[in-house]
Amino acid sequence: MEDQVYTESTRNGGSNSASTANSVLLSALLSAVRRSGATSRSDLVKKTGLGRALVAQYVELLAQKDIVVEMGIGESRGGRRPRILRFASELGLIGAVDLGATSVDVAITDLSSRVLVHRSESADVGEGPQAVLDKVVTILKDILAENGFSPSSLWGIGMGVPGPVEFSTGTPISPPIMPGWSGFPIREHFQRHFCCPVYVDNDVNIQAVGEAATGVSMGVANSIFVKIGTGIGAGIILHGQLYRGSQGCAGDIGHIQVDYLEAGHAVCRCGNVNCLEALAGGAAIGRAAEMAAQSGQSAKLAERLAKKGFLSAEDVGEMADKGDAWSTEQIRQSGRLLGYTLAGLVNFLNPSLIVIGGGVANLGDSFLAAIREMVYRRSLPLATRSLRIERSSLGLQGGVIGAAHVVLDELFSAESLMDVLNSHQGDAPVFASA
Amino acid sequence: MEDQVYTESTRNGGSNSASTANSVLLSALLSAVRRSGATSRSDLVKKTGLGRALVAQYVELLAQKDIVVEMGIGESRGGRRPRILRFASELGLIGAVDLGATSVDVAITDLSSRVLVHRSESADVGEGPQAVLDKVVTILKDILAENGFSPSSLWGIGMGVPGPVEFSTGTPISPPIMPGWSGFPIREHFQRHFCCPVYVDNDVNIQAVGEAATGVSMGVANSIFVKIGTGIGAGIILHGQLYRGSQGCAGDIGHIQVDYLEAGHAVCRCGNVNCLEALAGGAAIGRAAEMAAQSGQSAKLAERLAKKGFLSAEDVGEMADKGDAWSTEQIRQSGRLLGYTLAGLVNFLNPSLIVIGGGVANLGDSFLAAIREMVYRRSLPLATRSLRIERSSLGLQGGVIGAAHVVLDELFSAESLMDVLNSHQGDAPVFASA
Repeated sequence: MEDQVYTESTRNGGSNSASTANSVLLSALLSAVRRSGATSRSDLVKKTGLGRALVAQYVELLAQKDIVVEMGIGESRGGRRPRILRFASELGLIGAVDLGATSVDVAITDLSSRVLVHRSESADVGEGPQAVLDKVVTILKDILAENGFSPSSLWGIGMGVPGPVEFSTGTPISPPIMPGWSGFPIREHFQRHFCCPVYVDNDVNIQAVGEAATGVSMGVANSIFVKIGTGIGAGIILHGQLYRGSQGCAGDIGHIQVDYLEAGHAVCRCGNVNCLEALAGGAAIGRAAEMAAQSGQSAKLAERLAKKGFLSAEDVGEMADKGDAWSTEQIRQSGRLLGYTLAGLVNFLNPSLIVIGGGVANLGDSFLAAIREMVYRRSLPLATRSLRIERSSLGLQGGVIGAAHVVLDELFSAESLMDVLNSHQGDAPVFASA
Repeated sequence: MEDQVYTESTRNGGSNSASTANSVLLSALLSAVRRSGATSRSDLVKKTGLGRALVAQYVELLAQKDIVVEMGIGESRGGRRPRILRFASELGLIGAVDLGATSVDVAITDLSSRVLVHRSESADVGEGPQAVLDKVVTILKDILAENGFSPSSLWGIGMGVPGPVEFSTGTPISPPIMPGWSGFPIREHFQRHFCCPVYVDNDVNIQAVGEAATGVSMGVANSIFVKIGTGIGAGIILHGQLYRGSQGCAGDIGHIQVDYLEAGHAVCRCGNVNCLEALAGGAAIGRAAEMAAQSGQSAKLAERLAKKGFLSAEDVGEMADKGDAWSTEQIRQSGRLLGYTLAGLVNFLNPSLIVIGGGVANLGDSFLAAIREMVYRRSLPLATRSLRIERSSLGLQGGVIGAAHVVLDELFSAESLMDVLNSHQGDAPVFASA
């Protein structure tokens, strides 16, 4: 009978192959509860397409594991008043780490990726994995202790790093700005200190996941998240899922060549010329600003350079706000170059949303306007018929929220769900639910 | 009990929401049988991850519907000798149509996309949907009758057309080279003559599906099929599935701009300048050849032009084979332009295979070499670590095989499977199995 699918296979040992099919259904049900906030069994029947008896049975199982709790009686819609269910997000914690080139964000979230504690510190990725990861572990232990959380409350740790990562093993693969990190077993490093699963991914992928889970691309099937910081990268969400590519390096748009004729001469750190990143990234904007200051093209930038000793994209943004013509044109030019590249990718992938994030995304409205100008001018009209181009909505917390979501998606996947629930059976809530 | 999942839900009416979960599993099992050729119940347990009892029950159900048949006893691998099962591909027929700008291919396949009859005729897409579709219907009826097949043996019809298509409704959307076809209800046209489901998609998508199902990209998770004919387009296979994009126009790489500085002056039919298609497509190669002939750059092409009145990409290929230097360089240049564009898409999507198809793909080895040269030069090394770039293996039949597969994938999907099996219950085999 359909209403005994799950228990039958668990009674047979729980790990036989038949549990696969049931795990898929159970995971789908839990996913519906997680997304819903508060819901009822009848709602879940509608949302999942599963039968009433199967839903009741799965809810019972999840309630036994304390991951779904009843929170009272709801309003009647004609029949008996429904019992309201919710996901027990207070049952465990997630450690979320977003490593940048010069800083690291470490957060603790609940099982809904709600940020409970967030600490941002400077960190030089160039110091190598041992020093940087030791620092991350110390911060994580500190903020757990300061808030009265036990390390054993961690159900998982997620980390984003600024380079390509083989997701299945959690190891960076030849990351250009992370000397010494290639092949380093990040997962094992954490597991010497914490007894929980660890997932590592590229930082842009992680921000794309965060944006899709709780930000501006929530509920959008196909979107591209573009991060413009020192470099330029993208995270690709297709059918609501992160697409990582065959080697895990999908989204590396910073090294797409912008000029076939190679009329320009910007040599990129990858060795090629006229890569998008070498012409329009944050580092390129800073370099161009220094040249403009030195050659007398911008008095405002010259003044700032004399005071500070170097210039960054932020300086250009600030001077543009103060009416500096060179800075405004530089920002528009960077936006047009980015838009030019995105126009081709829009033709190719036909997404319905492009999200612009990263530090340089805050250069002002003319940057976004220039991106939009080029995309709408150069893409095929059909591909942009309902395309939106928006700024990231999560800002600084996007990375850690995404890191938490990468962990949660793995923990509650069909493959892991039963093991995770079994290993946390009897856990008390870590904190009082809101 | 898990071994009664399916029958319980059918006994309750068959169309309740619980059947969704079972349909997914049943469809997965049938898919494993379809891909296997010959298999046993034990093999299916391994391949699907379903329990033994569930596999036995689903096989029994599919055998009742005659879509899976037993073909004898296999070799023992230690235990009882297994009964061998196969997919009954002779139970029905698929009508497969591949419409080009100037020709149409119509085929009849069995339920495994094996081509039983194939007819190719000239057809001018510019004559509009009514005239062209009437012609297709006539050909289809003729080849059915000539081979003693009843139109009622058709389980479905699939058609590829040279332009963007909204797959869910089967209607072309503003196709640039198909005047009069925008919004035309192709599906309804067929259904006035044939009583079966009809699916319509873009011709390049359909070839990509064919190549993934039975050609060079079979078993490859992430691949891009590039068709270079008069124009240039691509079909994207991700995680083994065709990716269509938000408006159904993903893969339109022909209108990616190749030169940011717009130093060239090739105006494209889309209205933009220096689109890939306007510089490297078959029509562009033909135009360039005519100019080379008239300006005295190639004596061989001038001779051919005088004889023929116009030149095509095929002429350029032929002259290159005969040692014409201009033609060889033109082919290399087209290959480099295509490779330049693909290099960016490889960085972005990180596929493991690019398949080059369409008429211009046969221009000779220097074309493929030039594509490879640019991709390996311009893409990031990590993204090309295990990337292959190969010629299409299906050739002229790729379109109709793909059209048949698009139909088969839909018919045997979780959503349609039970309806399809119920509506064909009691069908006799259309022809003797091989």
